[in-house]
Amino acid sequence: MADRPGEFELIARFFAPLAEGSPGALGLTDDAALIDLPSGHQVVATADMLVAGVHFFAGEPPADIASKSLRVNLSDLAAMGATPLGYLLSLALDETVDSDWLAAFADGLAADQAEFGIGLLGGDTVSTPGPLTVSVTALGAVATGRALRRGGAAAGDRIFVSGTIGDGALGVMLERGDIADVDDDDGAWFRDRLRRPTPRLDLGPRLIGVASAAVDISDGLVADLGHVCEASGLAATIEAGAVPLSPAARRQVDNRPDLLKSLISGGDDFELLFAVPDGRKAAVEALSAELDLPLTAIGAMTAASSSESAGPAVVHGPGGAIWTLESGGYRHF
Amino acid sequence: MADRPGEFELIARFFAPLAEGSPGALGLTDDAALIDLPSGHQVVATADMLVAGVHFFAGEPPADIASKSLRVNLSDLAAMGATPLGYLLSLALDETVDSDWLAAFADGLAADQAEFGIGLLGGDTVSTPGPLTVSVTALGAVATGRALRRGGAAAGDRIFVSGTIGDGALGVMLERGDIADVDDDDGAWFRDRLRRPTPRLDLGPRLIGVASAAVDISDGLVADLGHVCEASGLAATIEAGAVPLSPAARRQVDNRPDLLKSLISGGDDFELLFAVPDGRKAAVEALSAELDLPLTAIGAMTAASSSESAGPAVVHGPGGAIWTLESGGYRHF
Repeated sequence: MADRPGEFELIARFFAPLAEGSPGALGLTDDAALIDLPSGHQVVATADMLVAGVHFFAGEPPADIASKSLRVNLSDLAAMGATPLGYLLSLALDETVDSDWLAAFADGLAADQAEFGIGLLGGDTVSTPGPLTVSVTALGAVATGRALRRGGAAAGDRIFVSGTIGDGALGVMLERGDIADVDDDDGAWFRDRLRRPTPRLDLGPRLIGVASAAVDISDGLVADLGHVCEASGLAATIEAGAVPLSPAARRQVDNRPDLLKSLISGGDDFELLFAVPDGRKAAVEALSAELDLPLTAIGAMTAASSSESAGPAVVHGPGGAIWTLESGGYRHF
Repeated sequence: MADRPGEFELIARFFAPLAEGSPGALGLTDDAALIDLPSGHQVVATADMLVAGVHFFAGEPPADIASKSLRVNLSDLAAMGATPLGYLLSLALDETVDSDWLAAFADGLAADQAEFGIGLLGGDTVSTPGPLTVSVTALGAVATGRALRRGGAAAGDRIFVSGTIGDGALGVMLERGDIADVDDDDGAWFRDRLRRPTPRLDLGPRLIGVASAAVDISDGLVADLGHVCEASGLAATIEAGAVPLSPAARRQVDNRPDLLKSLISGGDDFELLFAVPDGRKAAVEALSAELDLPLTAIGAMTAASSSESAGPAVVHGPGGAIWTLESGGYRHF
């Protein structure tokens, strides 16, 4: 067993400070947290669990593990158009976790709390003989009945994505040694995008009234677009050449054009994909300028030829050929 | 890897049916759940994580693992006086978990959902090379500003506990082979109380306006009373002989009187301990009769001799001697 304090001291030392900005956390000393919801709003709740060796690489900096665990949940809130209220954190600590690790993990959470304006509300800390496991539940608020859903798109709606696609997949490839000839700066970029994805909390709530459907890209662009298709009873067509790439990802694709398929079917981008009726495209352009965030049209929703054919997205390669992508998304499971 | 379906099919087959009664779960097919809160209420949120081999015994019936995971969280809501709204479930499945296990686990959840009037709201399902790990976040509602807290007790308040104390501890002892001469019926009772504790959801909300402080007994009666003392800046005295025991536990203590110390310092009872101003004792008696639930006075809150001495509860043994209990509670951690 690594050198770390018992449960109560551990909570008091590393986690109670993270709850100081959340009065409803009651200092993490009561049975549950109390959270005020703005009137006219619904609670938005989402949970993700991350396991060492499965969802992150063992030996990653603890602050990055903290960031990823928190941000993938905040990304789900953003996809619903919600504003975050706070989060609960349950940690199963393996024998390698010592006080230094916990301090660095808490520092990572503190930095993200400041960045996203949230606080720790509660949770649990236990020991495990297995791998370190991090379970986060994020709570948010959205005006009642106004949440963005996956199922609201209509045929003809344009499909947009925020930011750039594929950096997370390249980060995974880099960690696995599947790509070479990556200079240090590009490597650092891919790793940072993989480990510290940016939940689009500024964008999500602003898409209410603009987007007809939205999803965050966690299973891969093609798979998550497929979720929107299924929920909306539609199909979709996207142009692979229109998918926005970072300069670093562009350099990889220029060297190995076949990589593009992996990038648009890979997961871990945590960008938002959303459908927009044709008449609201100007609002998207205005949002992009205001938020200084690329919002790129990559295709359109189309009618499904039958209810059975809802779901698959047709991907046109840069030459116009239809791509069949082997993976329906990146599955950690 | 055990025979079980992939993540999406697994969710559709075993967990989506559990969300059918929760419209805000959106069929578990969106990024997050949407939950309506009654007006004038706050959200109450709590999370507990259970690890196979640490918090439950490997090989326990899956339905019991499901029950315990859910009920320990509902007990926290009850301790705050909250009414449950639903729960999120994150599961890390090890290689022993197959479809039969999942079906039995889901059946256990379904039975408890019916009993407690709640539904599944969301969650996550992942694979782990380590032990099965279950993480539940329960959400509830309480009238704004009315939640029961640990810190509201005053010197002179009577201390009550619901139900009976020590059955859970005896269940642990039985599983470990630390007690013998237990007949089958008593053994089944101890195991059931350990594995399927009863969250006092009927009692908790009714204690609002009656109790000055409340806590659920998860760390052990003495330790959890200590939490109330600390939060209230008080000390406490309890009479060990007044602590209510089930007939089965009474039989054990009659044979081995020293066991009583273990029972009142052991955890896993998930009864409520609460403080009541002297003038409201009649309300407690009325509640006990109405709910057909024993509510037993076991002692009183007392002034701390100094702020440093808040916390420890003084336990008077049946002969009047002051007991010093070695364990400050049962620590899974």
